[in-house]
Amino acid sequence: MGLLREEGVVYKPVEELDLGPDSNELYIEANIKAPRMGGFLAKNVAWILESRLVGTLALYILKRVNRIHKFISNATLEEPPMFVPLHPFVDLNEQRVMEIHSDASPAEKVQQAMECLPLAPESSLDTSKPSCFRRWTIADYSRAYRSGEITPLKVAERFIDAVRESTRRPLPMFFFINYDAEDILRQATESTLRYERGAPISVLDGVPIAFKDEIDCYPYPTTGGTKWLHKVRPCTGDACCVARLRSCGAILVGKTNMHELGATPSGTNPHYGAPRNPYDPSRISGGSSSGSAVIVSAGLCPAALGVDGGGSVRMPASLSGVIGFKPTFGRIPQSGVLPLNWTVGMVGILAGTLEDAFVVYAAISGQLPSDESTTLPPKIYFPLLNSTNSIPNIKLARYGAWFNDCNEEVRLCCSDALQSLCERYNWKTVEVTIPEIEIMRMAHYVTIGSECSTSLSSYLEKYRSELGWDARIVVDIYGAFDSKEYIKAQKLRYRHMQIHNRIFSKADVIVTPTTGMTAYPISKAALKTGELDYVNGANIIQYQIAGNFLGLPAVTVPVGYDKAGLPIGIQFIGKPWSEPTLMHIAFAMQALCITDYRKPLVFYDILEKK
Amino acid sequence: MGLLREEGVVYKPVEELDLGPDSNELYIEANIKAPRMGGFLAKNVAWILESRLVGTLALYILKRVNRIHKFISNATLEEPPMFVPLHPFVDLNEQRVMEIHSDASPAEKVQQAMECLPLAPESSLDTSKPSCFRRWTIADYSRAYRSGEITPLKVAERFIDAVRESTRRPLPMFFFINYDAEDILRQATESTLRYERGAPISVLDGVPIAFKDEIDCYPYPTTGGTKWLHKVRPCTGDACCVARLRSCGAILVGKTNMHELGATPSGTNPHYGAPRNPYDPSRISGGSSSGSAVIVSAGLCPAALGVDGGGSVRMPASLSGVIGFKPTFGRIPQSGVLPLNWTVGMVGILAGTLEDAFVVYAAISGQLPSDESTTLPPKIYFPLLNSTNSIPNIKLARYGAWFNDCNEEVRLCCSDALQSLCERYNWKTVEVTIPEIEIMRMAHYVTIGSECSTSLSSYLEKYRSELGWDARIVVDIYGAFDSKEYIKAQKLRYRHMQIHNRIFSKADVIVTPTTGMTAYPISKAALKTGELDYVNGANIIQYQIAGNFLGLPAVTVPVGYDKAGLPIGIQFIGKPWSEPTLMHIAFAMQALCITDYRKPLVFYDILEKK
Repeated sequence: MGLLREEGVVYKPVEELDLGPDSNELYIEANIKAPRMGGFLAKNVAWILESRLVGTLALYILKRVNRIHKFISNATLEEPPMFVPLHPFVDLNEQRVMEIHSDASPAEKVQQAMECLPLAPESSLDTSKPSCFRRWTIADYSRAYRSGEITPLKVAERFIDAVRESTRRPLPMFFFINYDAEDILRQATESTLRYERGAPISVLDGVPIAFKDEIDCYPYPTTGGTKWLHKVRPCTGDACCVARLRSCGAILVGKTNMHELGATPSGTNPHYGAPRNPYDPSRISGGSSSGSAVIVSAGLCPAALGVDGGGSVRMPASLSGVIGFKPTFGRIPQSGVLPLNWTVGMVGILAGTLEDAFVVYAAISGQLPSDESTTLPPKIYFPLLNSTNSIPNIKLARYGAWFNDCNEEVRLCCSDALQSLCERYNWKTVEVTIPEIEIMRMAHYVTIGSECSTSLSSYLEKYRSELGWDARIVVDIYGAFDSKEYIKAQKLRYRHMQIHNRIFSKADVIVTPTTGMTAYPISKAALKTGELDYVNGANIIQYQIAGNFLGLPAVTVPVGYDKAGLPIGIQFIGKPWSEPTLMHIAFAMQALCITDYRKPLVFYDILEKK
Repeated sequence: MGLLREEGVVYKPVEELDLGPDSNELYIEANIKAPRMGGFLAKNVAWILESRLVGTLALYILKRVNRIHKFISNATLEEPPMFVPLHPFVDLNEQRVMEIHSDASPAEKVQQAMECLPLAPESSLDTSKPSCFRRWTIADYSRAYRSGEITPLKVAERFIDAVRESTRRPLPMFFFINYDAEDILRQATESTLRYERGAPISVLDGVPIAFKDEIDCYPYPTTGGTKWLHKVRPCTGDACCVARLRSCGAILVGKTNMHELGATPSGTNPHYGAPRNPYDPSRISGGSSSGSAVIVSAGLCPAALGVDGGGSVRMPASLSGVIGFKPTFGRIPQSGVLPLNWTVGMVGILAGTLEDAFVVYAAISGQLPSDESTTLPPKIYFPLLNSTNSIPNIKLARYGAWFNDCNEEVRLCCSDALQSLCERYNWKTVEVTIPEIEIMRMAHYVTIGSECSTSLSSYLEKYRSELGWDARIVVDIYGAFDSKEYIKAQKLRYRHMQIHNRIFSKADVIVTPTTGMTAYPISKAALKTGELDYVNGANIIQYQIAGNFLGLPAVTVPVGYDKAGLPIGIQFIGKPWSEPTLMHIAFAMQALCITDYRKPLVFYDILEKK
C-alpha cells in the first residue's frame, strides 16, 4: 500500500503565491486519462465500475492517474473548508448603475430594466453590411405586439409549426423533452387578450421563453434528462424563476432537452436525442443546457433558462453563438430546481442579446423573503446601459498561459476581440497568474460528483440501469469519493476564493475564452447510447469552474466564428455581486461584434415582422 | 449486495413533525454495538480495521449494526446541506443586558464584566452550614493581590509546589502535558511588580489560567494529546484566546492533559496518564478536556480553557463538579486552536463559578477584525448579573423521554434542581418532543470523524502507529466515511437546526442533564494502552450534540452529587447568540445549589487567604 500511495502536494500559503505576470507558478494543463466512450465500450466500463472488487480497484486507478490523489486526496493545505460560495453582500459602488427597490415585483423590475436600455437597439446594426444578422429581441416582440403587427397567438402558432418542422428527419433538432401545444396556445390566447385590452403585464407579455428540464414548470414533469426522475420526484408547481416569468406574462413554451443529469458538456441525450448545433447540425450544441441554447440560437425564443453547475449555461451558449449569463451564487432563488447539487449549480440565462439576458435577469433575480442564508440581503443594481459613454478605467485580468491553452482559432479570435475592446474604450488588460486552475477543476469535480451522488443516492439502487451508459459511468465515478476528498475539495475552494480575491484587487473582471474549442461532431454512439468524452469535455469546460465553484458571476458573449463557421465566445468573470459591471462590459463587447453576427443554418424567423 | 443493503429511512418534512409533549415521534435510544476495548483487544481491533479487505468489511458491518446505513448513508431527506453552524447574528433583545463596544480591549471587557457582577459574591455563601465549600474566584485573587494579602509570585510558588505534590504516587493527577515552572515564575514576578506599582492590568492580573493542549500557548508545543503532532505542526505563537488572556495579565500556567486527539469522553491518555476525578481519584474526570476540568476542580486555577467538539468541555466539567461553558459557534476566534475539525469544535471555558466563566468569556470573546464569515458582526451583550431580581418569564423546554434517559440518580437530581429553579423564580417548564436526537448524534459522529480524518490525513501514514490503541481505532473508523455520508450528515444538520428553531419558538432554552451518568472507574487498560468505551461514551455524550453540531451556546452547572459523592451537572442549551440569557439562567441555578457544593477529596488551597 505504501508503494502504491501517491505523495500529495503541499500547498503554499496564499499570501506567498506570486500572482504577477512573471510568476514561477506553473500552469498545469488538463491531462485527462480517459478514452472517448460510447456504445459497447461504455457499457463494459459501467459494468466494471459497478462490480464490487474490480470496480474499487478501477476507481482507485482512475483517481490516481487523473491526479486526484496527488492534488486532492493526499494534499496538505492550511485553508479551512468553505462550503457554500455564498458571498456576504458587499456594496461595490459600481459606476453607471440604478438601485432597484428590493420589494419591486418582477414586472416592475422588468420595466425598470427597459428604462436602463438604449431606446433603439437597432441603431447599432449596420444594415449596409450584407452579412448583418440579428435575432429578434424581447423589445422587438413587445413593439410588434403593441403596434398590432402580430399577436402572441399568431407567434405561438408559428412557434408550434416550427417545432413540428424541426422534429422531421433527416436532421431532427430535439429541442424539447416535453412541450404542450395546447398549453402554449392557451397562454398565447390570454396574452393576446391582454394586448387587445391594452393592458399587457410587461414587455415580456407574450414572449416565448423555454426552460431546461431541470427546472420545475407546472404541469410538465421535470425529468433532468432521465427516463425516471420525474416518477420519484413529481413536479408540484413552478420553480421560483418560472413563476416570476409567468407573472410577467411570458409564454412558457416547454422543457428543453439536456444532457442526462447534466453529466457532461456535450449536451447529447440518448433518450431524447442530441440537440444539434444550428450553425452546423452535424455538431454538438454544447451542454448540459443544450436544448435551451439551441432553441435561442435557432430563433425560436429570444431567451431561455438553463442551470449552470459546471458551465452548463455558458458552454452551450458559446458553442451555439448566443449570450450565456450566470449571476452570482444566491442572486436567483434555486427553489424548484432539481437539487442535483447544492453548492455549485445555479439558474442561468441564455439569450440572443445581452439586452434580453438583462431583461430576463431583471424578472428572476432577487432573494426570496424567506432566504435566511445571509443577514444583509444583496442590494439590486441595474446597469445603465443607455448612458452614452461606457464606464471608464475598466481593468481586465488575463492569465496568458491559461488564456492561450485553447485551439488556435479560438485564441486568435478572443485575443483580437479583447484587444479591440480595450482599444475602443481605453480599457486595460492586466497580466496575472492564477495558480492551480486545473486543481480547482478537479476539486469542483469531486464536489459536484459527491453532491450529485448524494442527491441521487436514494434512487440509484433502483434506477441506475435506466440511465444512459454515459450518465451511468459518470454516476459510478461520482460515487467514488470519500469524505476526506470532499472536505479537501472544500478547503481548495476556500483557497481559490482567496486567490481570486487577490486577482480582483488588481482588476474588475477576469477575461478568458469561454471554451477551449468550437463544437465537435456528434458521434453515432452519442445518438444511440450516449457518449462520454472526458478529454474534449475538459477542453470545453476548462474556463468555467470559477463561476460555479466560487459562485462568481460570469457571462459569455459571441465574438466570432472559426473557419468552419462555428461560433466562438469570450467570457468575463466578475467579482461577487458585480452583475452590473459585468453587463456593461459584455454590452460593450457585443456592440463591437454584433454587426458581424451570422445567421445559423437552422433558423426559424418566428416573429417575421414586415 | 442487494440483500446486504439496509433500507434507509425517509425523513418527514420538518413542518410535519409534532414537537408537542404528546407527539408520536419515537424517542430512539442510543444502541451502540461495540465492546469496551483496552489492551490486547484494542490492539487487535486496530490491526483488523487497518487491513485492506477485512477492514473494509469490518467497517461496513460496524456502520451497519450501528445504524449509520439506515439513518444516514441510505436515508432520504429534503434538506439542503448546511455546513457551518455559524448563525447570522440576530439581536435577541434580551433582558437585563449591557451592550459592550466591539472595539473594547480584552482588559476593558473584563472590567465591564466585573461591573455586571454582584459586588460581594461571598454573600451568597451560607457559612453557617458545615459543608459549605466554595472555590476561590478571580475576584478573590484580585482582592487578595490588591490588598497585599498575598502576591502573584507567592501564588505561583504554591501552585508549582502543588503540581509537584500532585505528580507523586500512589495517585498522580496527571494535570499537565507540559508546564514550565520557570515560565510561570517569570510571569508571576512581572505581575507582582505591576501590583507593587499599583497598576495591575485587570482583575485577571496574576490569576493562574491553564489551557488544554489543543490550544497554542507559546512557547509550549501543542501536542493534542499525541506524541508527535507538535513535530509536524510546530506552535509558532499564542492562540487568539490565549493572547487575549495574556494581555489581561493572567498567568498562563501550562498545557493540560486531554484525551489523545480528543477522541473519547473519558479523558484518559495512554501517553500522559489518566487525569483523576478530584471527587474520587479512582474514577475518570471526563474528557476530552480532562486536565482542564481536573485542575479547576482541584482548586489549582479558578478557570481553564478547553475545546468542545462533542461536549469536550461540558462533560468533564460536569463529571468533575465545575462550570463548563461553550459559547455560540463563532463567538470566540478559533485561530491558534488545532484544526482537528472545522465545523463542530470551539474553545470553551471551565471555571469554579459562573462568575469566573463570565469574566474569562469577557476576555476572550469577540470576532477578529479579519473574520469575514458574516457581514453583520455579532453585537456583544453582557448579562447584568448584579440586578436584584432575576429575569421574569423564562421558559425551559424539556423533552421528557430524553431528559429521563439517564441513570436514576442523575435523573432525580436534575429533576429536583429544575423544579426548584422554576419554583424559586416562577419560571415555566415547557414539555416538548425533539425528534431524531440519536440520529443527530450519528450525523455529528460522521462529521467530526470525517473532518478529523481529513485534518490528520497528511500525517497518519507516518504517525498512525504512534497513536494509543484507543485513538488509533477511533481514527480508523473516522476514515471510513464516504462523501455521501458526510453530505447527508450535513443535510441532517440543516434539518436539526430547523427542528431546534421550532423548539426555540416555544422556549428560551432547552434543559437536560449534562451527562447520562456520573464518572465511572478508570480501568487498568486505560492507564496503559488507552481504552475505548463506546457504550459508556454514548451515555456520557448524549446531551452534548446540539451545542456542537448546531453551534448553540450551552452551559453546565453543578447541581448535586450521587450517593458515591460524584458530581452531577444540569445543562442549559440556548438560542444562537443568547449567551447573556444563558448566563442569567446558569447564575440563578448556581445560586440555588452553591451552598451545598462539596469539597473534592483532592484539593489544593492555592490562594489560602487568612
